Amino acid sequence: MKRSEIGKAQERAAAMLRSSGIALTEHEIAHIEVAGFGLGELDIQGLELITYVNTDRYCAKELVLFPRQTCPEHIHPPIGNDPGKMETFRCRSGKVFLYVEGAAPTSIQAIVPPASEPYYTVFHEIELLPGEQYTIEPGIKHWFQAGDVGAIVSEFSSTSRDEYDIFTDPRIERMPTVMEDE
Amino acid sequence: MKRSEIGKAQERAAAMLRSSGIALTEHEIAHIEVAGFGLGELDIQGLELITYVNTDRYCAKELVLFPRQTCPEHIHPPIGNDPGKMETFRCRSGKVFLYVEGAAPTSIQAIVPPASEPYYTVFHEIELLPGEQYTIEPGIKHWFQAGDVGAIVSEFSSTSRDEYDIFTDPRIERMPTVMEDE
Repeated sequence: MKRSEIGKAQERAAAMLRSSGIALTEHEIAHIEVAGFGLGELDIQGLELITYVNTDRYCAKELVLFPRQTCPEHIHPPIGNDPGKMETFRCRSGKVFLYVEGAAPTSIQAIVPPASEPYYTVFHEIELLPGEQYTIEPGIKHWFQAGDVGAIVSEFSSTSRDEYDIFTDPRIERMPTVMEDE
Repeated sequence: MKRSEIGKAQERAAAMLRSSGIALTEHEIAHIEVAGFGLGELDIQGLELITYVNTDRYCAKELVLFPRQTCPEHIHPPIGNDPGKMETFRCRSGKVFLYVEGAAPTSIQAIVPPASEPYYTVFHEIELLPGEQYTIEPGIKHWFQAGDVGAIVSEFSSTSRDEYDIFTDPRIERMPTVMEDE
């Protein structure tokens, strides 16, 4: 991703957080993580994150999703003695559609990212409105998409080791490469 | 504490959360925990809590403090293989004065609850404004007080086992006794 694109996404995420009444320090705003997953279509498949704390015992983040932006399907595998990341998503504003393994409805409310259909395989739907939350057990495939106005989601979890996440889409690189603008 | 007093504190806490833009479900509002610590002076020494999630791996809560309300000094001791609760306090609105072990200033900004002075022994001061946070290591004595407009604080932590907390004040009972109104 180009540095200018990252900066633009950071500003957009910061504005959404601000209008939801979520206070951040200047340092946090300047370090909002923009994950494009190496797919080159940030507004469709991407995620903006602020990691508040990540210790060897617990982790807390704020996730920002632009309207209809999707975090692609993945699992958190076991690592050593860790059975894999367990995480609770709590919707703070907007609406989020979360998909996990299990019985699927005949049609879902999210729009699977075009040309990426083969990499979305679980469709048990959980709709989260502000104040609603859901806990994802370790080793469960999941993906999520914001509704039409975007979403802010608090993530409470065991220790986060994003670099070990396994994505269904083999093209995905979780850790970003930043390219300077020409 | 009387059930009527609990109900009043729940309503007051819910109103503060609402005006800070923090969404709760009806069930959460009805189950706000009101901790008076058995001291009979809730507005001076007390705390209101919503536990979002508490698993064997992590915990997340929202803490509400009325203006100048104080959570009394305590530690989280080791329990079995657990080295003791580690917790991160993140101020969401208002202002909070947090005190931990360490160098103390000549005067502090909080008002130690009158007649309870012997039970406040650590005075290293951390002032948290919205967006600011601090992580308390296990086994460190701490207490905290809201500023003049109260405070809302997100607590991210390892597993919470409040019933094992050790308070400096031997009069304190962490787990409340509810008395029906006469």
